[in-house]
Order: sequence, then structure tokens, then C-alpha cells
Amino acid sequence: RLLIDVKGEQIGQINGLSVHHSGEHTFGRPSRITCQSFPGKEGVVNIERKAEMSGSIHDKGVLILSGFLGGRYAREHSLTLSASLAFEQSYSDIDGDSASCAELLAIISSVTELPLRQDLAITGSMNQRGVVQPIGGANCKIEGFYDVCRNRGFTGEQGVVIPEQNLENLMLEDRVLESVGRGEFHIYTVERIDEAIDLFFEPSVEEVDSRMESVLEEMAETARNLQDEDEKGEDESV
Amino acid sequence: RLLIDVKGEQIGQINGLSVHHSGEHTFGRPSRITCQSFPGKEGVVNIERKAEMSGSIHDKGVLILSGFLGGRYAREHSLTLSASLAFEQSYSDIDGDSASCAELLAIISSVTELPLRQDLAITGSMNQRGVVQPIGGANCKIEGFYDVCRNRGFTGEQGVVIPEQNLENLMLEDRVLESVGRGEFHIYTVERIDEAIDLFFEPSVEEVDSRMESVLEEMAETARNLQDEDEKGEDESV
Amino acid sequence: RLLIDVKGEQIGQINGLSVHHSGEHTFGRPSRITCQSFPGKEGVVNIERKAEMSGSIHDKGVLILSGFLGGRYAREHSLTLSASLAFEQSYSDIDGDSASCAELLAIISSVTELPLRQDLAITGSMNQRGVVQPIGGANCKIEGFYDVCRNRGFTGEQGVVIPEQNLENLMLEDRVLESVGRGEFHIYTVERIDEAIDLFFEPSVEEVDSRMESVLEEMAETARNLQDEDEKGEDESV
Amino acid sequence: RLLIDVKGEQIGQINGLSVHHSGEHTFGRPSRITCQSFPGKEGVVNIERKAEMSGSIHDKGVLILSGFLGGRYAREHSLTLSASLAFEQSYSDIDGDSASCAELLAIISSVTELPLRQDLAITGSMNQRGVVQPIGGANCKIEGFYDVCRNRGFTGEQGVVIPEQNLENLMLEDRVLESVGRGEFHIYTVERIDEAIDLFFEPSVEEVDSRMESVLEEMAETARNLQDEDEKGEDESV
Amino acid sequence: RLLIDVKGEQIGQINGLSVHHSGEHTFGRPSRITCQSFPGKEGVVNIERKAEMSGSIHDKGVLILSGFLGGRYAREHSLTLSASLAFEQSYSDIDGDSASCAELLAIISSVTELPLRQDLAITGSMNQRGVVQPIGGANCKIEGFYDVCRNRGFTGEQGVVIPEQNLENLMLEDRVLESVGRGEFHIYTVERIDEAIDLFFEPSVEEVDSRMESVLEEMAETARNLQDEDEKGEDESV
Amino acid sequence: RLLIDVKGEQIGQINGLSVHHSGEHTFGRPSRITCQSFPGKEGVVNIERKAEMSGSIHDKGVLILSGFLGGRYAREHSLTLSASLAFEQSYSDIDGDSASCAELLAIISSVTELPLRQDLAITGSMNQRGVVQPIGGANCKIEGFYDVCRNRGFTGEQGVVIPEQNLENLMLEDRVLESVGRGEFHIYTVERIDEAIDLFFEPSVEEVDSRMESVLEEMAETARNLQDEDEKGEDESV
Ligand SMILES: [Ca+2]
Ligand SMILES: [Ca+2]
Ligand SMILES: [Ca+2]
Ligand SMILES: [Ca+2]
Ligand SMILES: [Ca+2]
Ligand SMILES: [Ca+2]
Ligand SMILES: [Ca+2]
Ligand SMILES: [Ca+2]
Ligand SMILES: [Ca+2]
Ligand SMILES: [Ca+2]
Ligand SMILES: [Ca+2]
Ligand SMILES: [Ca+2]
Repeated sequence: RLLIDVKGEQIGQINGLSVHHSGEHTFGRPSRITCQSFPGKEGVVNIERKAEMSGSIHDKGVLILSGFLGGRYAREHSLTLSASLAFEQSYSDIDGDSASCAELLAIISSVTELPLRQDLAITGSMNQRGVVQPIGGANCKIEGFYDVCRNRGFTGEQGVVIPEQNLENLMLEDRVLESVGRGEFHIYTVERIDEAIDLFFEPSVEEVDSRMESVLEEMAETARNLQDEDEKGEDESV
Repeated sequence: RLLIDVKGEQIGQINGLSVHHSGEHTFGRPSRITCQSFPGKEGVVNIERKAEMSGSIHDKGVLILSGFLGGRYAREHSLTLSASLAFEQSYSDIDGDSASCAELLAIISSVTELPLRQDLAITGSMNQRGVVQPIGGANCKIEGFYDVCRNRGFTGEQGVVIPEQNLENLMLEDRVLESVGRGEFHIYTVERIDEAIDLFFEPSVEEVDSRMESVLEEMAETARNLQDEDEKGEDESV
Repeated sequence: RLLIDVKGEQIGQINGLSVHHSGEHTFGRPSRITCQSFPGKEGVVNIERKAEMSGSIHDKGVLILSGFLGGRYAREHSLTLSASLAFEQSYSDIDGDSASCAELLAIISSVTELPLRQDLAITGSMNQRGVVQPIGGANCKIEGFYDVCRNRGFTGEQGVVIPEQNLENLMLEDRVLESVGRGEFHIYTVERIDEAIDLFFEPSVEEVDSRMESVLEEMAETARNLQDEDEKGEDESV
Repeated sequence: RLLIDVKGEQIGQINGLSVHHSGEHTFGRPSRITCQSFPGKEGVVNIERKAEMSGSIHDKGVLILSGFLGGRYAREHSLTLSASLAFEQSYSDIDGDSASCAELLAIISSVTELPLRQDLAITGSMNQRGVVQPIGGANCKIEGFYDVCRNRGFTGEQGVVIPEQNLENLMLEDRVLESVGRGEFHIYTVERIDEAIDLFFEPSVEEVDSRMESVLEEMAETARNLQDEDEKGEDESV
Repeated sequence: RLLIDVKGEQIGQINGLSVHHSGEHTFGRPSRITCQSFPGKEGVVNIERKAEMSGSIHDKGVLILSGFLGGRYAREHSLTLSASLAFEQSYSDIDGDSASCAELLAIISSVTELPLRQDLAITGSMNQRGVVQPIGGANCKIEGFYDVCRNRGFTGEQGVVIPEQNLENLMLEDRVLESVGRGEFHIYTVERIDEAIDLFFEPSVEEVDSRMESVLEEMAETARNLQDEDEKGEDESV
Repeated sequence: RLLIDVKGEQIGQINGLSVHHSGEHTFGRPSRITCQSFPGKEGVVNIERKAEMSGSIHDKGVLILSGFLGGRYAREHSLTLSASLAFEQSYSDIDGDSASCAELLAIISSVTELPLRQDLAITGSMNQRGVVQPIGGANCKIEGFYDVCRNRGFTGEQGVVIPEQNLENLMLEDRVLESVGRGEFHIYTVERIDEAIDLFFEPSVEEVDSRMESVLEEMAETARNLQDEDEKGEDESV
């Protein structure tokens, strides 16, 4: 049984959406993605890749995240960060880049310790410059999260975030459309990752960015202090 | 013959539970997992992986442990730790993540030098945020440890620790249930790793964590002093 | 749907040109190449290669770029740079070196933060000394970008940049030639990468080079300051 | 012809015992294991592994040795050691962990420069906590070393060291048992590696450990002095 | 079309000679080899190898160059050099060591910034001690460069450099021999790499070596100054 | 044609002996092994291995050399050495460890710059403690070097060095035995590598060792001075 939250907030944990196949049947399902981060030198650690459970397109998506993070946060500050990403309770290979927006949000939450909304799920890939790109299987992914929320009872705040470009070809089942019409479930579209940051975090994008920068600064300082103390200790002993 | 302790306490040694197949017969058996740790830069060393005897899912489980340890203990302290994990007397490939709770406890015991109860065995995987997840083969794993304890004679304190979610589908043999009823053998369920820390260690979770932090601090200092002395030595010679 | 800009300017983003096969049909299509760069030690990061989606000839082309950058900018300054290159929305293997001129321009733009023209696309390989070399498929690549521009409406400034040596065997369709004749679309040829730098960037090659050098200097300083502060901190504490 | 010593003492050299197959015949034979150690960063170097002549179980056995050494000697001192292990005159793949006790003794001898008895041979695996575990082929391994000693002439001190747990199933040929009865040849059993240290080295386990610690300290100092002199030299030149 | 110069001088660029097969026909052709070098830690970078386009014998030839450079220039100076070698416009695997003399000359030219004659081509392997060794295909390689020079018009200075040992078995076509007789084309033989250095560079071998040493010294100093400034900056701020 | 010297002395160059097969015919042939060494961190560089032209047994032999060098020279001094070993003009895979004595002598000559006799060839493997071990093909290897010397004319000093243990089974052709009887050619046997050092170098083993130590000291100092100057430069600028 999958452990999934569909309400409240959590740090370093987000609902991604994936497509599964069972015989001839195709269905969507939320998947829990987590991140743990701490001062270090490894950058973004793709646990699936290290365990040889990640396909090339997923690998590429995570490498693109690293490029984005480097360009956005590391021009002035060195990125002395290890951010460890995992698909929890996933026992087969991961491929595709449709989780890359979710992964970025999990990283930001883990670094900043700002919580992410658990009543939203997100699908969408992003490029190195923060542009959100369309993905496949949007309909069944939305329906998959819709069904989990309906089974557990709607809060009225639940919904999914999808790439703007996926909107035009969306062909959702009537029951979902009607539910959306009734305001039980929401479909948000985003063109840039900043819009997703705004949806998932309480504070504004600027506040998130500024918190991100100050924590990265602190982390660099932690790394430094560990060396500092060494040299201070030496001074004291003279 | 397997070397297994079913009473007393040991540092850096724990009873995991694994499933074995012999022809059409499936049975559970305890397996001894050990950890040795010391100041270093390797982090969690998965000996089975280094020896190419570890499957992807086991690798992923150990990588998730590293993420958990980093997030829990390394935000303020740098993790200058080598923690070497092994399945003792195991001569074939290890797979699955059902030993990850056991592995985490062995690491914590080895670092803190706080002993682990040997009259308990544990099965269960955990995620990067410390949530314990259900695993397969719970029945035969429990029966495997039950049988070893019965053969060696019950102490009244022996038992197994399993994920909370495995409780509902448990279908144990009557002889085990009756024995549990008689208080000869115990079945504990845990939802978060902290509950398992509490069960296996004498001190409270807070005390274990605080000991963990002070040893990690000492280890970082040991690493530093080795450099310090170099520079002090130089001062003396001037 | 591919996300491509055919007007305006962007930093770290350029239109490359690639050939695709669909059954017996061969056609050209623009592809978006992006670069993110920041102080670091990785040099030019070929994301496709890291994701095992890059053929040997593409790998060689990127390695040649690194040699060129080293010889041009790193004799006096150390290259403390990570420049992450990706073909966006590309889900299959990349091969060939015909994007190497485009990749170099994306790197320079990303480092200098000088914008690149989006109304031009470029195809051509370059050697370690900056000489532009002929490539295959010039006709269909040109037609591919021509068609995208025509569909979105000509600005009068749009066009492609190709290696000088490809000019003599060019066999473009009449509609393209006539459009070029009408000044709707332009075909530029280059013998050395400096000519391409001049076409894509507003400032002169000398200004681009001088900006490149000053940013690389700043990046080296950023890396240094991060260490400096450590040592300053120590001084303060004495 | 194998070069084997069956009397006297040597530094960094020990007699292991291995099983060989020739057609349908199975026989034991001593094998010379050597270690060379010096200040360095490589830790235990498994030469067979580096030469791709070591199976997974042998690799695992050597990794377990590293864990044991780390936990026993490196909690207070950093292990700035390279210890290079080889099976001499062995031209085919090594597997199994039955040489791990022998390997540990060779490492300790090489580091401390305390000589090892050559009139003993040892077989047995050990775990990360120093517990000696049973191995296969005990009978023919014992007979193999017995035959070499008999051929070269008994000294009255010769014998083999085996795991305690192998004793109960031992089925030695009468000629060996009678020879043991006559005091020509000895069979020692050990439960923990400390007992084997005591048998192979003249000094007590405590003395061996203390020598081990002081040499590791010296090695760390050698590494430091090499840097010291650099800085001292600088002082002199001011 | 291959870009080849057959007159003038260039820095870091040389004409090698390779043999190609087309059906049953075998022919020689010049190939442009380039080098870019700058302060760094990578040593000789074999771009073909990094792109997995280099056979073992070519790899070995380049490794032998590194040994030669180390022994000749690095006993007193540390080689803080990255020298990036590429076969330009070569899209298939390279093998054989017959380009190693050419590669060494390209490296020396790139480091010293002394230009290489483009009216000569060279074939020949060298050993770690600078001895030039015979190679295969000498006849067709010579004829290949001869034909390119004849097509573009003889300057009277053009020619090839081959290993001394290849002279005795040379069987050139009459038209080449007659042309050599008329002084239109030259064939030089060399026994040691120093003779080739003398032929390709204007200055004497001693001058080339002395320039090589002073640039390597400068490069080491550049690397140092980058750190110096860090520490100077710190002094200023006190 | 192979380049081989059979008289005089050379630095970093030695005659090894190898066995070749041509159809059903087996014959011995000398092979030139060279070494170049310089201050560095790579230790013994097995060029054949790096070029994937070395079998496991050859790799193991070179790793054993590294162990021997570490134990003999690096207990007091850190080995800041790169020693690059190659079989010159060898274009197929190397295997076996019978060249390890030759390789060690080439390394020592290259480091010390003491010349090696070229009128001797050597075959023999050695273990980590300097013991010379028997090898295969002794007869045809000896005859191979004998024939080269006879063809070029005997000096009266020429000969081969073989392991002591190979002497008893030697079955040389009569022409060789008679020539040895006439003092035209010599066969030396060695039990330990020190005897081979004595034969190949003019100075005594003690003098060679002392030169080895002083050069390794110098190399470590060169490495240090390169850093020293950095810091001195800084002092001057204050
Ligand atoms: Ca929207
Ligand atoms: Ca918000
Ligand atoms: Ca519970
Ligand atoms: Ca407790
Ligand atoms: Ca032009
Ligand atoms: Ca311009
Ligand atoms: Ca005993
Ligand atoms: Ca003793
Ligand atoms: Ca000549
Ligand atoms: Ca000259
Ligand atoms: Ca002798
Ligand atoms: Ca001598």
C-alpha cells in the first residue's frame, strides 16, 4: 500500500504523478517524491540513478535541474549542497522527465525547510531556464490523483498542476470535469516553474528565493566553520 | 551454522529477518547485520554493493538511509563518518529494502557505541523522512525468528518489530499466536523509525540523538586534531 | 510541441538545426540548445553524455569545444567554470558534431549573460582552433528553420548561419531561394567561429571576449572569496 | 613449484590454506599470502581484486577486514595506511572468504613489523566484529599442510589454526590423527581473531594492539612531517 | 572536404598521415591534428579516447607521449598542464601509433606557441625515450601527401618526415621519385624525435626545450598566482 | 623490426624476454621495456593496462611491484612518484608476470638515473617481499636472446638472468650450452631481486638503495618547492 498524503503540508515531500500499466489497462497514480538536503559536495543526488533504477530521460531531467539550480543560485554562492532525491516505495525503474518540476520543488522545500502543500500533485518537465514543458499521459495522471482524493474525501483545496501546453488536448472523464465544475478539485496550469513555486509554497517566489539564498549561505558557512574551528582551536592552544 | 544471538546486547550488531527458498519451500531466517564506524569520508559503505552482491532495491534502500542520516544529523555538522554495513555469513546476493530499518539501527549503535537488544529482530523499510513502510514475507520472517528463540529457549523478552501496515494482513501459525498469547514472544509494530530506536536502545530517542550528535562532533574533531597537531608541531619547532 | 523562439534575444539559449527521419521522409527542424553556467570545476558538462544519450561524434565535438575554450580563455585565467549544455525537449540520442558552433555560442552567452539572437539558427562544427567545418544535411536544415519562421510570420531579420564550405553545394527549394531574394530570410556563411559570434551577439567579438574574460575573472574571485571569508573570519576572532 | 616456509618467522607473510581440484580429485594446499604496508590513503588494497582475479565473496571478506580495522584502530587515529595484500604464485581466480583471518594477520604483521610464525597455517573467515566463522574443506586443507610439513620433516611445533565451529565435523585421516596424537602436528581452534593473534605472534594481543596503534600514529606523523617540512622550510627562508 | 594547409606555419596544428580503405583500394591521406594547451591538471587529453573513438594501440601511443613528456620536462617542474589532442574532421575510430610523433610536435607547439611548418607532414611512432620507430603504410602515406601538394601546386619546400627504419623498404611510385629528384618534394628521415623537432620548428631543439620549460614554469606560476591573489587579498583586508 | 640494444648501458631501458607463437612454432624474443619517472601521484603506471592491452596476471605482477616499492621505500618517505612502464613496439596483449623483475629494474633505473646493462636480459617474477619466483618458457627465452647476441656478435659479457628455481629443469640446445662453455654467453640465476639489482647496476645494492631514497626525497621536495614558492612569493609581496 502506497503512503500518500492528500492534505496538509510537509517539508521535502511532494506528490508526483506517474502512469502505470497493468495488462492492457493504463492508469495514473500519485507517487511520493522526497528530498533530504545538507551541506555537502554531491549536488543533486539522483538515488534512482545511483541504484541503477533510472532511465536516460529521467537522468537527463535531473541533470537539467542541476543546471537550473546552478544558474539560478550558484553564480554568486558556491553550491556546497547535497540534495538526495528519491521516489519512495518505487521498486521498478523510473523513466521520463515528467517529474522534474516535482523534483525541483522537493529540493527547494528540503533546502529552505519551507513546507509543500500535500493537497496538490504536479506533473511537468522543465528546461534549464525554468520553462515548463508538456508531458504525456496528462489525462490518466490527473484522474489518478482525483480518485485518491475522492476516496479519501475532498477538502475543496485539492488539485493538480500541469504544463500550460497540456491544457489544449486534455480529454478528462465527465465525472472529473463535473467535480472540477463543482469546485471539489482544481486544475492549475503553469508555463514557468515560478508559477509552480508560488502554488506549492505559502510565501511568494521572492521570499522562497531569498530563503533559498540565505540557507545556501548558511550551509557554505557551516562547511567553513568546521574548518574555522580547527584553526581557531590551534590559535587557542598557542 | 549461522552465528546469531537471541539475548543480551551488542554494539553494532542486529538481527535482521530474511526469506529463503529451498525447492518449493519458503522459510524465514534471522540474519546478522553488523556495522563498524569511524571518522572518515566514505559515508555509509554498503559492503554487499562493493562486492557486487547487492541488488538495485537493496542499494536504493541504503542510499535512502544516507539521505535520512544527512538530513537528520548533517545539517549543522558535517558527516565525517565511514559506516561499514555487512550481512555476516551471507554468501549470495542480497536484494530488497526490508532490512533498511535494521541497517539504520546498526549504524546508530556503531556510531554511538550504545548497545542494541539481541532478543529482538526487525524487518521493515524506511523512507528518507523516517517513515516505516510495509514489506513482504512478514509471516515467515516472524516464524523464522520465533523458531530460533523457541529452540534456544524463550527468555520472555524476545520478539520481532514489524511495520504497522503489515499488521492487518498478518496470518501467523497458531503455535506462534498462542505463544504470543502466553507472553513468550512479542510482536511490536512501528510507524516511524523513532519507535524502533526506542525499542532497541535502552536510552530514549532524544538521548540516542544527542549521543549521536556528540560522537559525530567528536569524530569531526578527531579528523581536525590530526591536522591540528601537524600545525601545532610546526609552531613548536619555530 | 517544440518550444522555439524565432524572434527577440535570450541569454544562454540558441536555435540549433537537426535532421530527423520519419519513414522515408527526411526533414530539418530547429532544436533549442541551452546553457547554464556558474563558478565550478566541471568545465563543459555535456548533459546528453551524462545521461548516456550522446553518440561518440557529438561527445568529440563537445570535447573539442572544451579544448577551444581552454586555449582561448584559460592560458592566463584558470577556468573555474561549470557550463551545463542541453538539447531541450530532445528524448532520443544526439549524434554528430554539427551543433558545436551553436553550443559554443550558448556557452559564451551563458557565461557573459549577453543575449543571443533568436531570429537566427546555426549549424556547423568547429575545430579546436575556431575553424568552422562543413556539415551534412544543410538544405533540409535551412528549410526546416525557414518553414518555422514562415509559419510564425517573417520579421525580415530571420535567417540561418552555415559553414562557408557548405555554400557551394547548396540546392535549396525555389520557394526558399525566392524568399531569400525578397529579403524575407537570410543565409549567412562563416569560416571562423568569430564571424558567428559577431552575428549572434550585439557587441563586437572583442567586446564579447573582454566580457568573457572579466566574468571568468569574477567567477574565479567568487570561488576565492568563499575561502577568503573563512580566513577573514578567523582573523576577526583573534 | 610453490615457495612455502614451514618453520621460522617472517614479517608480512603467512600460510593460508586453499582447496584445489584436479579432475575428480580434491586436495588442500598451503598458499603464501603477503602484505606490504606504508603510509598512504588506499586502505586495504586487494591486489587480486585490482587485477580482476577475485570473486565477490573474497572481495566481501576483504571489505569486512577493512571494517574491522576501521572500528578497532581508527576511531581515535585516522587510518593513513596502504596495506597491499596478495596471494603469491597464484595464477587463477581467488574466491571464498576462508582466508580472511590469514589476511588480517598478514596486515597486522606488515604494519607492526612483528614476525608471524611460519610453522602454522590458518583457515577461517571473520566478521566485522572479530568473530571467527566456520569454513568449508577443513579436512583436506589440514591434510594439505600436514603433508607439506611431513615431507619437509616435522619440527614438533607445526600445525593448523581452524574455526572452533569446524571442530565438531572434522573427519581427518587416521595418519593425521595419529600424528597429532604423537605431538608431531597440532590443531588449534579459535572463536575470535584475538586468539589467532595470540597464536601467531610472540607478544600478547595487548602488546600487538599497542604496537599497531603506535605504528599507525607514526605513519600519520610521517605523512604530516612531509607537509611540515614544507612549511618549516618556508619559515627558514624568511 | 578536408581542411588541410600545405604551406605556411601554424601554432598547435600539424599534418599527420593516415591510411584509408575504400573497397579494395588503399590510399594515404593527410589528417589535421591539433592541440590546445593551458594550465591544468589533466595532462595529455586524448579527445578520441574520451569520445570512445580510439583503439588500444593509439591509446598506448598517447600514454607513451605522456611518459616522454614527464621524463623530459617534469623531473624539476610539475606538469600543471592540460594538452587537448584531436584528429580534426575525423568521424571514425583512430588506431595505431603512427601519429605519435605528430602528436608530440603539436603538443610542443601549443605549449610554446612556436609555429609548426605546414608544408611538411610526418608519420612515425616514438617510444618513451624519444626513439622514432618504423610504421606501416609508408608508401601510400607519402603518396597521399604528395598528391595533395601537387594538386595545390608545389612550393619546393614541401615534403614528408618518416622514421629512418622505413627508408630501406620504401617502394614509391616513379612519379613521386622523379618529383623528389626534381627537388619539388622532399623525404626526410629521423631516428630520434629531436630531429623532427628541428625540422618542424624554426628555432633549434635547445631553444624549443628552453621555451617549453619557461612556459611550463609560467603555467605553474599562473596556477599559483590564482591562489596567491586569494591570500594577498586577505592581507589587504586586514 | 625490433629496436634492441645488446651492449652498453641505458637509463630506464631493459631487455625482457617473451615467448611468441607462430603457427606450431614457439620461440623466444627479447622485448624492450622502458620506464619514465617524475614527481607525481600516480605511482607505477602500467601503460599496457591503461591501454587495455594487459592481462590479469600481468596486472597483478605490476601491482605486486607497487607493494614491494611501497614497503621498501615508502615507510619513511611518501612515494610522490609517477613511474610509467611500457613494452615498446609491442602491439598485442601482454600477459604473465615473468617480466616483473625486469620492470622493477627499469623503474629503479629511471628514478635513480643509474644506467642498466643492455648486454643482459632478464626473465622472472617477484613477490611483494623481493623473492624471485620461477617462470615458464625459460629455454626458448634464453635461446631467443642468445640468437640476437650471436647475430650481432658476442661481446663476451652478454647473458641472461633467470630465477634460481628454473635452473634445475633447464634443457638448452647444445649450441647454447657449448657457447656458454666457451664463455661467449652467460646464464645467471637469482633468488632475490637484490641479486638482480647487483648484476644490472654498476653500484652495489646499498648504493642503489641510497640513491633511490635520495631521489625520492628530492622528488618530494620538488613537489613541495612548487608550493613553497607560491607562499614565498606571497611573503615577498607583503
Ligand atoms: Ca496558468
Ligand atoms: Ca505562494
Ligand atoms: Ca506500534
Ligand atoms: Ca528505549
Ligand atoms: Ca561569410
Ligand atoms: Ca555583433
Ligand atoms: Ca580454541
Ligand atoms: Ca602470543
Ligand atoms: Ca635522417
Ligand atoms: Ca629548426
Ligand atoms: Ca645465483
Ligand atoms: Ca653491481
